[in-house]
Amino acid sequence: MGEFAKLPGIGRKTALRLVLHLLRQEREEALMLADAIRAVRTDIHYCRHCNNISDTDECEICSNPQRQHDTVCVVESIRDVMAIENTRQYQGVYHVLGGVISPMDGIGPDDLNIDRLEARVAAGGVKEVILALSTTMEGDTTNFYIYKRLAPYATPITTIARGVAVGDELEYADEVTLGRSLVNRIPFDRTL
Amino acid sequence: MGEFAKLPGIGRKTALRLVLHLLRQEREEALMLADAIRAVRTDIHYCRHCNNISDTDECEICSNPQRQHDTVCVVESIRDVMAIENTRQYQGVYHVLGGVISPMDGIGPDDLNIDRLEARVAAGGVKEVILALSTTMEGDTTNFYIYKRLAPYATPITTIARGVAVGDELEYADEVTLGRSLVNRIPFDRTL
Repeated sequence: MGEFAKLPGIGRKTALRLVLHLLRQEREEALMLADAIRAVRTDIHYCRHCNNISDTDECEICSNPQRQHDTVCVVESIRDVMAIENTRQYQGVYHVLGGVISPMDGIGPDDLNIDRLEARVAAGGVKEVILALSTTMEGDTTNFYIYKRLAPYATPITTIARGVAVGDELEYADEVTLGRSLVNRIPFDRTL
Repeated sequence: MGEFAKLPGIGRKTALRLVLHLLRQEREEALMLADAIRAVRTDIHYCRHCNNISDTDECEICSNPQRQHDTVCVVESIRDVMAIENTRQYQGVYHVLGGVISPMDGIGPDDLNIDRLEARVAAGGVKEVILALSTTMEGDTTNFYIYKRLAPYATPITTIARGVAVGDELEYADEVTLGRSLVNRIPFDRTL
């Protein structure tokens, strides 16, 4: 019960309920859960190209010949890969940093997966690096750090558009976002 | 009291409180409020260029020689003009439609200020029309209608960028917005 209660969002009462549920269940089902949990830690690998989670040492996206391997989208975490995949708008590959530069939390550039990003770009064959980090102070710092690190390779570096969310009304947008929406406006026929 | 209670967000109890407040106040202060309310309806004009509210028949923005009069931002309402002005990122002028095309509410193109927009563009001297309407069904319809109406004049038509709001994290953005953010990405050095 103590082990369950260590999980996020599970307190002592929920932990007790889970344990009692396992006891009521068929022995096999409980063992299946145990095996699944073991497998998460023993069978899951990180992709050697992009650091995404994977069953093997190359993830499904990196091993897919249909994807554009010359376009690399830099994200903070695996959850961002999932969010972008859900849009079905992106055909390129990823590079998962594993966080952002955050001196407050003691996370410097060396703690992130930036060396391997540089190596990918240095190896050639990357036509565009898309920075898709959060626009927090830490995200902006990391963007700028990567921009500087990759500058010698003259690879085009882009960033995702910031603006008023689709469906949102202008008057409820914050000023910074609305300002960026205007400054980075695009030809209307590109949206058709 | 009944007149107060007709105002939005003011019920019978608040109306009574306001009336009692006016009775307790100096006679002059109450009359000042009455005059101010009268002035709203008698002294406020709509700008003959852009339909913005104004003290005279030309609003402060249209009469300002510092503004770029060849860039026209099309918005739904005066509140959107205020929202964009608050960003301090826009130097052009406006065109207030007074609504969006909405068949459900019986609002067609003729009910909006579109003829005068076309006349402004037809008169020449407009280098860019920026569509800044809400991305609702009605906003999109109105955008497309204006795009078609202005097509003969070959004036560049742009639209504000849609994307993840500044400060927001990717994983909490809706899929459509995140998708547009990616598709309409911009060179990173333009954000510096």
